[in-house]
Amino acid sequence: MTTTTVGGYLAARLVQLGATDLFGLPGDFTLTLLDEMLAVDGLAWIGSTNELNAAYAADGFARVGRRPAALVTTYGVGELSALNGIAGSYAEDVPVVHVAGMPSRAAMGRGAPLHHTFLDGDFRRFERMSREVTAAQTVLDPGNATTEIDRVLRTALDTSKPVYIGVPLDVAAASVPAGALASPLGTATSEAPAVEEFRAALWRRIAAESEVCVLAGPRVHRRGLEHLVAALAELPGVRVASQSGSKALLDEEHPASLGTYLGATTHSPVTRDLVDGASLLVMAGTVQSDFTTGFFTHRYDPAAAVELAVDHARIGRAVYPGVRLEDSLRVVHDLVEHSAFAPVEPVTAALAAPAPADSLDAPLDQARFWAEVQGWLPPSTTVIAEAGTSFYGALDLRLPRESDLLGQPVWSSIGYTLPASLGAGLARPDRRPVLFIGDGSAQLTISELGTIYARGLTPVVFVLNNGGYTVERAIQSPKAAYQDIVAWNWTRLPAALGAPEVECLTVRTARELRAAFDRAADPDHAVLVEVVLPPLDVPRLLDEITRGIAAANTVAADSEG
Amino acid sequence: MTTTTVGGYLAARLVQLGATDLFGLPGDFTLTLLDEMLAVDGLAWIGSTNELNAAYAADGFARVGRRPAALVTTYGVGELSALNGIAGSYAEDVPVVHVAGMPSRAAMGRGAPLHHTFLDGDFRRFERMSREVTAAQTVLDPGNATTEIDRVLRTALDTSKPVYIGVPLDVAAASVPAGALASPLGTATSEAPAVEEFRAALWRRIAAESEVCVLAGPRVHRRGLEHLVAALAELPGVRVASQSGSKALLDEEHPASLGTYLGATTHSPVTRDLVDGASLLVMAGTVQSDFTTGFFTHRYDPAAAVELAVDHARIGRAVYPGVRLEDSLRVVHDLVEHSAFAPVEPVTAALAAPAPADSLDAPLDQARFWAEVQGWLPPSTTVIAEAGTSFYGALDLRLPRESDLLGQPVWSSIGYTLPASLGAGLARPDRRPVLFIGDGSAQLTISELGTIYARGLTPVVFVLNNGGYTVERAIQSPKAAYQDIVAWNWTRLPAALGAPEVECLTVRTARELRAAFDRAADPDHAVLVEVVLPPLDVPRLLDEITRGIAAANTVAADSEG
Repeated sequence: MTTTTVGGYLAARLVQLGATDLFGLPGDFTLTLLDEMLAVDGLAWIGSTNELNAAYAADGFARVGRRPAALVTTYGVGELSALNGIAGSYAEDVPVVHVAGMPSRAAMGRGAPLHHTFLDGDFRRFERMSREVTAAQTVLDPGNATTEIDRVLRTALDTSKPVYIGVPLDVAAASVPAGALASPLGTATSEAPAVEEFRAALWRRIAAESEVCVLAGPRVHRRGLEHLVAALAELPGVRVASQSGSKALLDEEHPASLGTYLGATTHSPVTRDLVDGASLLVMAGTVQSDFTTGFFTHRYDPAAAVELAVDHARIGRAVYPGVRLEDSLRVVHDLVEHSAFAPVEPVTAALAAPAPADSLDAPLDQARFWAEVQGWLPPSTTVIAEAGTSFYGALDLRLPRESDLLGQPVWSSIGYTLPASLGAGLARPDRRPVLFIGDGSAQLTISELGTIYARGLTPVVFVLNNGGYTVERAIQSPKAAYQDIVAWNWTRLPAALGAPEVECLTVRTARELRAAFDRAADPDHAVLVEVVLPPLDVPRLLDEITRGIAAANTVAADSEG
Repeated sequence: MTTTTVGGYLAARLVQLGATDLFGLPGDFTLTLLDEMLAVDGLAWIGSTNELNAAYAADGFARVGRRPAALVTTYGVGELSALNGIAGSYAEDVPVVHVAGMPSRAAMGRGAPLHHTFLDGDFRRFERMSREVTAAQTVLDPGNATTEIDRVLRTALDTSKPVYIGVPLDVAAASVPAGALASPLGTATSEAPAVEEFRAALWRRIAAESEVCVLAGPRVHRRGLEHLVAALAELPGVRVASQSGSKALLDEEHPASLGTYLGATTHSPVTRDLVDGASLLVMAGTVQSDFTTGFFTHRYDPAAAVELAVDHARIGRAVYPGVRLEDSLRVVHDLVEHSAFAPVEPVTAALAAPAPADSLDAPLDQARFWAEVQGWLPPSTTVIAEAGTSFYGALDLRLPRESDLLGQPVWSSIGYTLPASLGAGLARPDRRPVLFIGDGSAQLTISELGTIYARGLTPVVFVLNNGGYTVERAIQSPKAAYQDIVAWNWTRLPAALGAPEVECLTVRTARELRAAFDRAADPDHAVLVEVVLPPLDVPRLLDEITRGIAAANTVAADSEG
């Protein structure tokens, strides 16, 4: 094949990068584009119920699959609805490829007053908006399409950030040379001399140490480099804590695991002390934010640490551009191996939640619910936990082996996880999605639940029904009208959304919850469990987080006064 | 009261402008703002299930209410989800006030890496995005808040476009002087000398005429100036056609009404000829787009017409800045009144759909469905018709008296009308909302259906179930996978969304449809009717529109070749 079409080229590249599914909705400016893209083998169309959900689903696919995912939306009306999802992918380092249909070049050239526009002849408005939330952008022309597609996709890979590709209607089926497809897309590599200098300097730094503590962040997770951390964890003298955006990056049952580090809000004081007090702290692919540092209560000094960033490394004040994360991790491994540290004492046991003592028939509260979940959660699970009580409840779990946690500690957009479960399930069919989501959050994106079932996925969905926005109630004005939501009948939703076969239960006690776990034992049958919880009850960690938010708000208000 | 808070001032101004409801969702950066705004009498909180729906609901409120509506969203994650709705308000001339919470000035000043950000210290990113889709923007400070709020709201009123107000967390409750609230917000007025020059020139232009044809567009509708058109229509020698975005702006039973004009796709050839052939055509508040002109098949010459725009008038090539629409309409009225034209023959009868002839028990098709609707539709109805078969089916109806049609002929964002029905019902409780929406479209925004019922509204909702995206099927690739949607059980949805009292029916024949009309007779009881229709059947007008789109796409593809 010496030529293909622009749409065909783009699809072929996506397939090469591991995309197996294409998310989105059709529109009159994308029909030809979709016809061309879906003619390529290996790309299945996953129609979404709206564009925000498509963006969330693509994000879930890319996070769990550790490879790019793509969505196609139409001009203006489609692409703008996806922007919040794309922004979330940016904030959380997820390489989502946003493909947007556009009117034909001829129509744009003459400034035609078309539908889906402001009738003002400005056809770059929506691309300008996308510039704010993507790492690279292009609007294709037959003459530049193959190089531009490659450039933009390469940026997505190199940065783990979303990118934007605008495809005019008449460009989608235009003929372009296919030759470049014979070579896989090259991505950024380290500069060898920089790596050697980094190695030499780190060797001097490590010589005086007897152990190393690694804080592994989401950028390791997104780039699929957890095997390098796992290899490092096999060496004596190594401990690994993860950040909340990459929980269980190292299996939490591993003896080297310290669980999740969150500054003063870290579950285990031992973990906190080991990270904060580490003589040699290696920050690998980390992010520093209010929620990931327990409101900046970390006591380690990032400036004194060794940092392994995506495109550079740093030892104290010395920066090594051109040393990429995958290579700096290997350097650390080599040097620790040669250092032959003494083994360190495992602390994993401290991370398990205490067994609950109260009756099986007492009304469930957050503490009991999560303790029961801890006892049940099976291995090989993709745990997906919504911002709010769910994410901060799940963070205090010790996850079983071969599991992953999806959530948005930085972007924290409510509603994200439900469509993300669709992408997660498609990306890793070997791992069952188990979703925890509050009732307030689930209302934002509920329509995608039908898609999840229609695609044959059989997740366990826990809807934590506490009658509104509990996380906001914990911060301020718990009785305000805006904290309430419309009371839905959760257990009727799957049937209404086309999936009468889904088993739906409401549980109010630990005994009922355990019965629900039993019903969820068959991985081939989807189960939805409505968990009735008190409106003002929050898990331990969220209690500390919301106190932090309320305190920050009060300080802000006082400083204004 | 000599002082108030920033939130209180903003809310008081909104109430003065006629807002009775505030749409949106809470977030940790907006709790104080909401507390301050909702402390003001006259503003009820309408919690939405997501921000896009809140924007659509606000748009529906403002369109039907002919007055500004407001929504409050939180920083980043909230406001971005609303952007498509705000853009739709821009494209369709609807004054929606988008209020977005922001972090405190102190946190932004020090570039704090907060949740809901990209951790890069850039706190103006989302405001920059909103600049592309709003007519005015501000980020408030206690020192400028009252003048900035007034400036931005004035722009919304003067332009009928959406505006953006960012409120940092600590600014929301800051004290500001309340004195300005004693004076209503002043809006733009015409320049008297310009109006007089326009009057004199139009008098010369009109002297040779014996009748006048008015093409009344959406900008008359949005600004609530239909009474001026109605007064004009009482004069002899006047005919009034409307555009699709302002259908029934003049009651369609009025003898002067020509119904809706759409170029070559106009239902009635008589209407088309009268508009295209008018010796004196007055374009009042019109918009020119592909869909509003039947793909540019209008045969009148806009350059030769008299145009009454929002902020200027034009007679042929002569432009009169400073002559605003409300005044130019009055000038036309005065001059036509003094011209004492002879009466013209009414043509209204030609607009009614022909009575259907086939059996009451035959499977429904689009033609029969709309003919039955024509026979049933009661007066004082807000007809809300979704882009696709619904809008283009409804356009061919002759609406009963005291009715309004909501739809998006320019922006055409599918899913818009369902949440817009919420706003429409709240803005005009004296008019029952009757929603027509396709199954594909309804999936985008279905969650707001629960809110509609929870707020006590009792609409009649027709879900036109034709198994997917019929409008796209009519354009291209009808059997493509992307044309399909997940099959929902529509009649189970109201109960799942918390409204088991809603009567739900599925109809497949005219007889069943008539029985459903009977069930919908009580305006105090909500009814949802699933109407099963053939997947490839479209109403007359949509058939012509989709042929136009397909032809435009083909021309574009060929010109590329």
